[in-house]
Amino acid sequence: MRNDGRAADELREVRFERGYTDAAPGSVLTCFGGTRVLCTAVYQDGVPNFLQGSGRGWLTAEYSMLPASTGSRKPRDRGGRIDGRSVEIQRLIGRSLRGVMDFAKTTERTIWVDCDVIQADGGTRTAAISGAYVALHDLLVHMGEKRVLRDWPLTSQIAGVSVGVVGGEAVCDLTYEEDSRAEVDMNLVMTGEANFIEIQGAAEGAPFGRDLLDGMLAIGQAGIQRIFELQRAALEI
Amino acid sequence: MRNDGRAADELREVRFERGYTDAAPGSVLTCFGGTRVLCTAVYQDGVPNFLQGSGRGWLTAEYSMLPASTGSRKPRDRGGRIDGRSVEIQRLIGRSLRGVMDFAKTTERTIWVDCDVIQADGGTRTAAISGAYVALHDLLVHMGEKRVLRDWPLTSQIAGVSVGVVGGEAVCDLTYEEDSRAEVDMNLVMTGEANFIEIQGAAEGAPFGRDLLDGMLAIGQAGIQRIFELQRAALEI
Amino acid sequence: MRNDGRAADELREVRFERGYTDAAPGSVLTCFGGTRVLCTAVYQDGVPNFLQGSGRGWLTAEYSMLPASTGSRKPRDRGGRIDGRSVEIQRLIGRSLRGVMDFAKTTERTIWVDCDVIQADGGTRTAAISGAYVALHDLLVHMGEKRVLRDWPLTSQIAGVSVGVVGGEAVCDLTYEEDSRAEVDMNLVMTGEANFIEIQGAAEGAPFGRDLLDGMLAIGQAGIQRIFELQRAALEI
Amino acid sequence: MRNDGRAADELREVRFERGYTDAAPGSVLTCFGGTRVLCTAVYQDGVPNFLQGSGRGWLTAEYSMLPASTGSRKPRDRGGRIDGRSVEIQRLIGRSLRGVMDFAKTTERTIWVDCDVIQADGGTRTAAISGAYVALHDLLVHMGEKRVLRDWPLTSQIAGVSVGVVGGEAVCDLTYEEDSRAEVDMNLVMTGEANFIEIQGAAEGAPFGRDLLDGMLAIGQAGIQRIFELQRAALEI
Amino acid sequence: MRNDGRAADELREVRFERGYTDAAPGSVLTCFGGTRVLCTAVYQDGVPNFLQGSGRGWLTAEYSMLPASTGSRKPRDRGGRIDGRSVEIQRLIGRSLRGVMDFAKTTERTIWVDCDVIQADGGTRTAAISGAYVALHDLLVHMGEKRVLRDWPLTSQIAGVSVGVVGGEAVCDLTYEEDSRAEVDMNLVMTGEANFIEIQGAAEGAPFGRDLLDGMLAIGQAGIQRIFELQRAALEI
Amino acid sequence: MRNDGRAADELREVRFERGYTDAAPGSVLTCFGGTRVLCTAVYQDGVPNFLQGSGRGWLTAEYSMLPASTGSRKPRDRGGRIDGRSVEIQRLIGRSLRGVMDFAKTTERTIWVDCDVIQADGGTRTAAISGAYVALHDLLVHMGEKRVLRDWPLTSQIAGVSVGVVGGEAVCDLTYEEDSRAEVDMNLVMTGEANFIEIQGAAEGAPFGRDLLDGMLAIGQAGIQRIFELQRAALEI
Repeated sequence: MRNDGRAADELREVRFERGYTDAAPGSVLTCFGGTRVLCTAVYQDGVPNFLQGSGRGWLTAEYSMLPASTGSRKPRDRGGRIDGRSVEIQRLIGRSLRGVMDFAKTTERTIWVDCDVIQADGGTRTAAISGAYVALHDLLVHMGEKRVLRDWPLTSQIAGVSVGVVGGEAVCDLTYEEDSRAEVDMNLVMTGEANFIEIQGAAEGAPFGRDLLDGMLAIGQAGIQRIFELQRAALEI
Repeated sequence: MRNDGRAADELREVRFERGYTDAAPGSVLTCFGGTRVLCTAVYQDGVPNFLQGSGRGWLTAEYSMLPASTGSRKPRDRGGRIDGRSVEIQRLIGRSLRGVMDFAKTTERTIWVDCDVIQADGGTRTAAISGAYVALHDLLVHMGEKRVLRDWPLTSQIAGVSVGVVGGEAVCDLTYEEDSRAEVDMNLVMTGEANFIEIQGAAEGAPFGRDLLDGMLAIGQAGIQRIFELQRAALEI
Repeated sequence: MRNDGRAADELREVRFERGYTDAAPGSVLTCFGGTRVLCTAVYQDGVPNFLQGSGRGWLTAEYSMLPASTGSRKPRDRGGRIDGRSVEIQRLIGRSLRGVMDFAKTTERTIWVDCDVIQADGGTRTAAISGAYVALHDLLVHMGEKRVLRDWPLTSQIAGVSVGVVGGEAVCDLTYEEDSRAEVDMNLVMTGEANFIEIQGAAEGAPFGRDLLDGMLAIGQAGIQRIFELQRAALEI
Repeated sequence: MRNDGRAADELREVRFERGYTDAAPGSVLTCFGGTRVLCTAVYQDGVPNFLQGSGRGWLTAEYSMLPASTGSRKPRDRGGRIDGRSVEIQRLIGRSLRGVMDFAKTTERTIWVDCDVIQADGGTRTAAISGAYVALHDLLVHMGEKRVLRDWPLTSQIAGVSVGVVGGEAVCDLTYEEDSRAEVDMNLVMTGEANFIEIQGAAEGAPFGRDLLDGMLAIGQAGIQRIFELQRAALEI
Repeated sequence: MRNDGRAADELREVRFERGYTDAAPGSVLTCFGGTRVLCTAVYQDGVPNFLQGSGRGWLTAEYSMLPASTGSRKPRDRGGRIDGRSVEIQRLIGRSLRGVMDFAKTTERTIWVDCDVIQADGGTRTAAISGAYVALHDLLVHMGEKRVLRDWPLTSQIAGVSVGVVGGEAVCDLTYEEDSRAEVDMNLVMTGEANFIEIQGAAEGAPFGRDLLDGMLAIGQAGIQRIFELQRAALEI
Repeated sequence: MRNDGRAADELREVRFERGYTDAAPGSVLTCFGGTRVLCTAVYQDGVPNFLQGSGRGWLTAEYSMLPASTGSRKPRDRGGRIDGRSVEIQRLIGRSLRGVMDFAKTTERTIWVDCDVIQADGGTRTAAISGAYVALHDLLVHMGEKRVLRDWPLTSQIAGVSVGVVGGEAVCDLTYEEDSRAEVDMNLVMTGEANFIEIQGAAEGAPFGRDLLDGMLAIGQAGIQRIFELQRAALEI
């Protein structure tokens, strides 16, 4: 039994508030319990140098935590300071979303996905990916209406969830408190067809064997199925 | 008559949502119409070098816009890039709040005020100051409860408002659309005793004479009185 | 009576040494008593991205203090370090000068104004603006002779002065010693027609009421009139 | 059959040249076929701020590619530029090595592990981890001889290998040419007890199902067993 | 015969204006013809980390050109940009001055020498060294009066001069115009005893033989003797 | 007699291992005793802005030390940090190599020479220049084979050597241990015709007179002659 009474494979309350702000065509406040991430998606004409002339588009993701999103204030990335964790996370978000995009359909346009953490209570990177999918969907509908797409570019649904081992047991969607006690910390990103896009698992306390790995994969896959339903409900698709 | 039907001296709808996030003792979502700024306040032990041993505290403010808070995406301040406008604004916020603080009462502690713009529709810096007062008030109550204050450090209430000249007429609390047409752009910060903390006026289109200055001061003072009432209502004081 | 015997509305000795260096067409050593600022103006073909194709020019100002211009050595802005005060000041200088320029007359050219403080004794930013006007005038005459102007671009004379409240009394053109004791610190920039370009006032010690504001505006306007005369004498116009 | 004739689960020639340079107590040129990484390990007294007074040590890893290690010259990380991939990789190396260290045994000392890629032909990060283990072992023996350890801090052997899916088939230790064609790219880090320290898998071309995942895990585990033997042979343990 | 009628071994007019600014105890405007460098010297208590506890002092030099000191405006070193030439020059200035300082006499104090080029017409680095000697002398007299020296730390007089080969002939103290045509560019720094502190010679157009080297050394030594006289006259020693 | 038994004018063992890595057409591990520098040379189409349209090429050199190449770990140049010594050295290497290149023969191509110090035992900069010549030669042969040269661009052979004064005596090719005791530190770069490209001498302990200078020049010239032979042997020319 977990602190908040959840079963091992149970998600916290998940919500996707679309249209949270006005300026971005995709703008989704994503809540996994106390974790709140604002995911926005906009597009610009043009692509990075390495794609110019290719006829293909690109997607760049950025991730950042507001200073007061955590218990001890997190300094901003200013004046050349680099936060390695943010770099790692935004690379994960970008790779994941690019994994379900067919960029031949967007022609030479760049999609910017911004994931800004308003409040952090564990699982911000997978909440970001799950919410960014909804924001991206809204942006692509908007682009379709603007007639700047050749065809629908999303090749699949996508969502992420954190899993871990706490007290020797595999659990899903960890809170910050659980995360800080976890022996293993893993993030899964999967497609609507139940295939993997990303698996990132790290032993925090002790190395883990194949049994625990299988347990985490099973529990994560179940969680992601539930997120898919909630994404579709939010998008009314 | 203004675009949105307001009188020249009329504010947009102003709201202060206290306790907007959990991690910071002061956390206020501040809305002036479509402008939304998250103002948070936390404290840390210790002060910058130039105050060590003085027995006095300090307050530092930071201001930043989320990339998707405006129509065309605003790049983040990363990798040494500096946004001069943000620097100017956060210096204004910090000076204004320090203007009503008696730091002998906090002893050697640093208060961090973060103003993050979620959505920008004009007047973000004065909304930030008005909301930061509420967040600072909440933080100081919290510090009082934690028994880390010698005495109540706030010497006055404080609020800010934007005024300007649009189409030859002085108006209060400009939207982005009005701001981009304004001939003069002015920000006022005042105390509860109707004294000035900051006046910053700049001719955008054409220089302005003493008449327009007096008109703007009058209209701004009226607006600030209304904000004071709303701050007190939000704080239930 | 002030430390140096000046009346409340009296300027220090003000001098504009034109042609102070050879490489820049506008090069003016500007002295307000012990404050010495080298103001230079040059032009380059081309404009920043946001103006390309507009047929209009631009003016950028930079402000910096030499390390040994103040009592305790001021470190240089190197290696990504940013000095917020310099950013704020150079933005003020740039806005002020652009306020009296008609850039349709320069076509797509960028004017660079550099204000380097050789010695700082209060009022460096307003001395910079007053001297930069003279340097800009010299540059524009030079550009006229080079036949790269459509017409004369200056729409008015411009000058700045610092005012403040010291010991409860409004005074003009404060020395560093006065500035460090001042209750209010204000900078005024006005045009030859006695209109305002910029007003920036900040309570340092205590908030200030409308009376003191009016007193500072009156004393500042008188000081600026005197600077206008000295500029014209220096320029022999 | 692979381009170079290897079986799917076959490693390239792996070598660990200990004592490759003189200045660092641990200094190992690590070769996986054409991939060559210089792994060095040194220690310094003291630890980062967050560990001061804890009585525990720390290990920091840095990873960098020489400009000419790849076909198209890779610019250096200078002047504030950041290479996100290097950040991600050095965080992986550091986490992995810390996963087999008991820092109570080192007391407050920081171990620096530098992994500099001399020539890149795929799998540089896992070669770095495998070679860094050997360098770390040499450093710890040296520290033991210097009598600065309480006890032997390594809790297990550790090695890493890249696996992937090429042409629909799971293969081990990919060359750059294979890597650029791979549908899935995965890195495994395991301990001598055949437990996982890190799993990082990313779909490059197409999402992957559970079958391929299991195949990659099996083939990777076999490869790592072989690397363990070669590490022990090199260390003569 | 040179453009300005000078003989091959003849200096331009050299002047050292002491007390050029007030804030620094050593402050010398150094002019070599059209080259004007402001050299200032101040001291601070304390030394860099590597000297703490040694009982010895240090001297750091910085060199910078004002943007308008040259024909085409030189951008400032801001935002992480680095100007390699400035780095090289300030290292030369610092090494040269340290070469005639006995830091046991200053105890643990740091002397800062700033060389800011107001106008550049060739030979700025050697003008900087020659003028910095005068500023350093003034600072040390000031430190003696403040009783913060154990004993007089200067072990010798020091001066620098540029020499070069123009049109096949060795010449001394080149103007910018000569410098841009020079086949060889050399800087000499010598002590009052006619010994070398620094020799830096670079072939610009064509490699140079021993004859030309000897010619440049002879002509440079003569020029430095004349600078020594002018330094002593300026210092009245 | 020197520590390692060498005569004053005797080099350490010098080796040039061509083809040390595969990715760069020029790739030479250069060893002067314990000093090992990897020198690589590649080319790219295009030139820096100031040469575009000139029909001429360019050569840029970069120099860096691996963190573990010295006894106390050298931090990397990351996050805006600048190492002045590296800047100075890479400018020397670039100038020297450009001194024997006729860039009209390369047309608008940029040659990148990277000198990365694997192990530092004195004389890294002159070893870098000597080895870079061999790498550059290999690159130019490769470019010739690719038919991207108009004609052979090297105008002469080039090599560098360190000389110094240790214990009052001029010696050649100093080890780190000798270098740290040296009274004078000098670097010579010469062409195959025994002319000078660069002379950089600095008094470390005490100023040096003309006699010692002549002694160092003689001993250095002899050393460079020997390096020329070894370069030709390595290149089989």
